[in-house]
Amino acid sequence: MAFQLDSRENPKVKHFVKLLSSGKYRQEQGLFAIEGARLCMDALQSGIPIAELFYTQEAVKKYSAIITALEQKASKSYQISDGIAKKMGDTAHPQGVFCTCKMLDKPDDLVTIGTDSRILAMENIQDPANLGAMLRTAEAVGIGRAICSAGCCDIYHPKVLRASMGAVFRLPVRREENLPETLEKLTQMGILTMAAVPDASAKPVTSLHFDTGAVAVIGNEGNGLTKETIEACKVQVTIPMKGRAESLNASMAACILMWEMLR
Amino acid sequence: MAFQLDSRENPKVKHFVKLLSSGKYRQEQGLFAIEGARLCMDALQSGIPIAELFYTQEAVKKYSAIITALEQKASKSYQISDGIAKKMGDTAHPQGVFCTCKMLDKPDDLVTIGTDSRILAMENIQDPANLGAMLRTAEAVGIGRAICSAGCCDIYHPKVLRASMGAVFRLPVRREENLPETLEKLTQMGILTMAAVPDASAKPVTSLHFDTGAVAVIGNEGNGLTKETIEACKVQVTIPMKGRAESLNASMAACILMWEMLR
Repeated sequence: MAFQLDSRENPKVKHFVKLLSSGKYRQEQGLFAIEGARLCMDALQSGIPIAELFYTQEAVKKYSAIITALEQKASKSYQISDGIAKKMGDTAHPQGVFCTCKMLDKPDDLVTIGTDSRILAMENIQDPANLGAMLRTAEAVGIGRAICSAGCCDIYHPKVLRASMGAVFRLPVRREENLPETLEKLTQMGILTMAAVPDASAKPVTSLHFDTGAVAVIGNEGNGLTKETIEACKVQVTIPMKGRAESLNASMAACILMWEMLR
Repeated sequence: MAFQLDSRENPKVKHFVKLLSSGKYRQEQGLFAIEGARLCMDALQSGIPIAELFYTQEAVKKYSAIITALEQKASKSYQISDGIAKKMGDTAHPQGVFCTCKMLDKPDDLVTIGTDSRILAMENIQDPANLGAMLRTAEAVGIGRAICSAGCCDIYHPKVLRASMGAVFRLPVRREENLPETLEKLTQMGILTMAAVPDASAKPVTSLHFDTGAVAVIGNEGNGLTKETIEACKVQVTIPMKGRAESLNASMAACILMWEMLR
């Protein structure tokens, strides 16, 4: 049985909105917030623990099977008014289904990473839509795991979750305080560490053979990779360019490198 | 010598802002508006006729060479205050350099398209950032021309221009009222027309040989290609998928198909 929430000032509502808007609050609480029938169901099917479920009467009509499934797993359920749904909605037309979820701890030790793994590493990616799109693409082409430097935006940012189409729930993602050190360890394990640079003197990705594990390291949208990260990698890799555009944008470059690693 | 504009209500300023915001006004005037030193210089170097140039005193200090070059080609130049620059700016931190430009007519007849061409066609792409990113990627990997269906967003939308990094100025882009008819003509010319579909029964792109010209046709972000457009193409092509994600997003799918066409 769902409780009824009627006030926009209810602490549960404020809690949800703060989880959407503040990365710091998400970290403190160990929780994140999601919106939309599809994304909530994705979380459930991926084994993400659902803490609270919120839904409107209208949503029950449209998404009854999904809400029933979510309600069985959610620790608490609340029925909310359309007004509250609007306040909780991060999108223009909220579907009236919202969850708070527990962050998954994915403390896989580096040594547990198979030496035949295909990995995407991202350094200081700032735009949540870019980060989400890269994770979505990584999952689609068959990348096994992702690594984010500490300077990347939060993977639980609502725009990352949305752009990733739930890939955040399924792909193991590590956050690394010291990315160069991690890359050096991966190199020692026999994994080919590749710094993506828009530089004609780097190795064309089409000339590489991926018979061992490999990690493609993608840098910030405007500034590329840091010097330390480039130096920590075994090779510098580039995408042979034909047009006058200086380089591909970060997510397109990531897309081509991941595709080549798994082609 | 630049005229001095001091009022935000000046008709020149209003004209510029309307060119930024209204696709209909752009069509009526045969003009579009751009912002930023880099993009204005890209337009100039690509042979786009510059109608009006606007710049702040601050911008003259930072971008003197660019402004001098632009001023030599612009029909009219205006020096503007910082307040006017803020009103004209579409971005958070305008650089204080703005141009209005004449739309290029690119009326290349279909029969002039080489039968070895590599082409990107887009149907009903709605998001200007997606359209711009696809054009940028197309130019970078070496696609020779692009086709937009009438349902695509305007290529002179400021977000398309920005995301394309000037590729709009350099890549011949045709707008087609009847995309299926155009594709049928291209097929008759011996060009391999490929409808991109997220469908396991379609041909994997990795199984195709691109020894003739080819066109990759990408559909709307949410709905994919229309039935008419799929039927007008010679083959249905797909990207072999490994993860649980239903499909790549439109611009990532376009990226991989274009890359494979030119690999």
